Amino acid sequence: MAREADFISALRTIATHPAARGLTDDAAVWGDLVITHDMIAEGVHYLRSDPPADVAWKLLAVNLSDLAAKGAKPLAVLMGYALTGDAAWDAAFVEGLHAALAAFDVALFGGDTVALPAGAPRVLGLTAIGTGGARVPARSGAQAGDAIYVTGTIGDAGLGLRVAQNEGEAGELLTAYRRPTPQLAAGQMLAPIVTAMMDVSDGLLIDAARMAEASGALFEIVLDAVPLSAAYRAQKGEQRAARMTAATAGDDYQLLFTTSAALPTLDCPVTRIGQVKRGEGLVVSDSAGAVPLPDTLGWEHKSV
Amino acid sequence: MAREADFISALRTIATHPAARGLTDDAAVWGDLVITHDMIAEGVHYLRSDPPADVAWKLLAVNLSDLAAKGAKPLAVLMGYALTGDAAWDAAFVEGLHAALAAFDVALFGGDTVALPAGAPRVLGLTAIGTGGARVPARSGAQAGDAIYVTGTIGDAGLGLRVAQNEGEAGELLTAYRRPTPQLAAGQMLAPIVTAMMDVSDGLLIDAARMAEASGALFEIVLDAVPLSAAYRAQKGEQRAARMTAATAGDDYQLLFTTSAALPTLDCPVTRIGQVKRGEGLVVSDSAGAVPLPDTLGWEHKSV
Repeated sequence: MAREADFISALRTIATHPAARGLTDDAAVWGDLVITHDMIAEGVHYLRSDPPADVAWKLLAVNLSDLAAKGAKPLAVLMGYALTGDAAWDAAFVEGLHAALAAFDVALFGGDTVALPAGAPRVLGLTAIGTGGARVPARSGAQAGDAIYVTGTIGDAGLGLRVAQNEGEAGELLTAYRRPTPQLAAGQMLAPIVTAMMDVSDGLLIDAARMAEASGALFEIVLDAVPLSAAYRAQKGEQRAARMTAATAGDDYQLLFTTSAALPTLDCPVTRIGQVKRGEGLVVSDSAGAVPLPDTLGWEHKSV
Repeated sequence: MAREADFISALRTIATHPAARGLTDDAAVWGDLVITHDMIAEGVHYLRSDPPADVAWKLLAVNLSDLAAKGAKPLAVLMGYALTGDAAWDAAFVEGLHAALAAFDVALFGGDTVALPAGAPRVLGLTAIGTGGARVPARSGAQAGDAIYVTGTIGDAGLGLRVAQNEGEAGELLTAYRRPTPQLAAGQMLAPIVTAMMDVSDGLLIDAARMAEASGALFEIVLDAVPLSAAYRAQKGEQRAARMTAATAGDDYQLLFTTSAALPTLDCPVTRIGQVKRGEGLVVSDSAGAVPLPDTLGWEHKSV
């Protein structure tokens, strides 16, 4: 992972245009446009056994989640698709892509197809273009005194991945993993009043730590407040270990944001999970006191 | 290849937005913006032995060539990059990308990095965004009576690939393969006066056939007129077979266009190679008469 960090650091030195936001944000912001590009790879971001329509959904959703985090309205995508010789899979993917594009009212503008050697893992890329509102929040604006919030529930997709790996029953956990819902409406409502916002893709704690670092502030998170679904609690409970697993699992595609303003009415649950203070870094506590941070706070540089 | 054609046909049915131009053009055209996304894969579009800086150049150049074909001025790119565990290669790639971006005055806006399993071929994607002029030519506008032109020389990159495969000497043929030059200035000068324009990426004849089909016209190409470089002629001669090899080789990244207007002064050679007539399809002749078309006119659906 150090190599990946080195690579991204090197890219940052050449991404000097203000629109790139130093490659530290979820998307590029260029005039009215908000633009992101995320890739997903078989065996890395999805399982070979995942249904192709769900892979198409995820490819779109992870990109739209980046636009949601900037309060942008999605308009269009361009796709890079790797064919690996399975025509039935490809046909099912196109059907799923069609349905996903229709669900979010997004146009397919173009892209490219390459035929990879047999046996190579599929690699799919998508560029999503949206329009931002009057304010396009960054990750870097959190202020001491702000509250920290997260939308939806955390940890479901991580547990859903286990379900998928064990060929478990369909249900909301599996759906959370395979068909995440980008919080587009909430992002657009929140953009005018937040000081910082990003999507939670790699894990709540690692993403909170990134926001704290970008903002030059200390994030205090109360683990007991991290919202868990009933399905999650039914399987894992809600003790410290279960909550820490949820908070470091990734693939949530919820919005993490800070503000000291009153919240608008949203179409999704929102939970206050902590407080921004002067200082730097991330501290986590629960009703029993300080919670030691695990070595790994989430996925490093998975970054979709 | 039929599978790839089927896949693209299926995508066309869902790409109904006018900006997509039916997925039959080199790029999407949306308001002032011209946007393209091309991927290149190791072992497909470049050799594992190609220098990483040249791969970076090619990734950028093949996308900028699409913009050139629409007369657009490139502004920015987003990149999807697959790490496969070779940090030295990755570092050299970033250096090469930096130099290539600087050469064309293009900004890096963002992108994504994924770590692929060891042994997987590298897959690199790039989205390039440019601004179009008052007219953005399509592939579909060629009219009976127009002359057919091509910029530069044809076949050099195809021969350069052979040089690279055989570890031959550096020279202009190898450079044509590894570091193609997108004809950006010519594209911008030509866009106002052409009836149709595209870049020659898959082979002169297959691309001419595509333009003829999109335009609903007959393209008559004079093989003797296809411009060959001195380096090409020195190796292959200029008889019918050598010319046919050049005209079906691909990777030229020259501009193919039609017009009945006088040409502006360009910064590259331009050669009249034929005539648009009423009818449909492609016919090729030389001083000895009609030239039978080979089974394969170029790369099918390589499409960068």
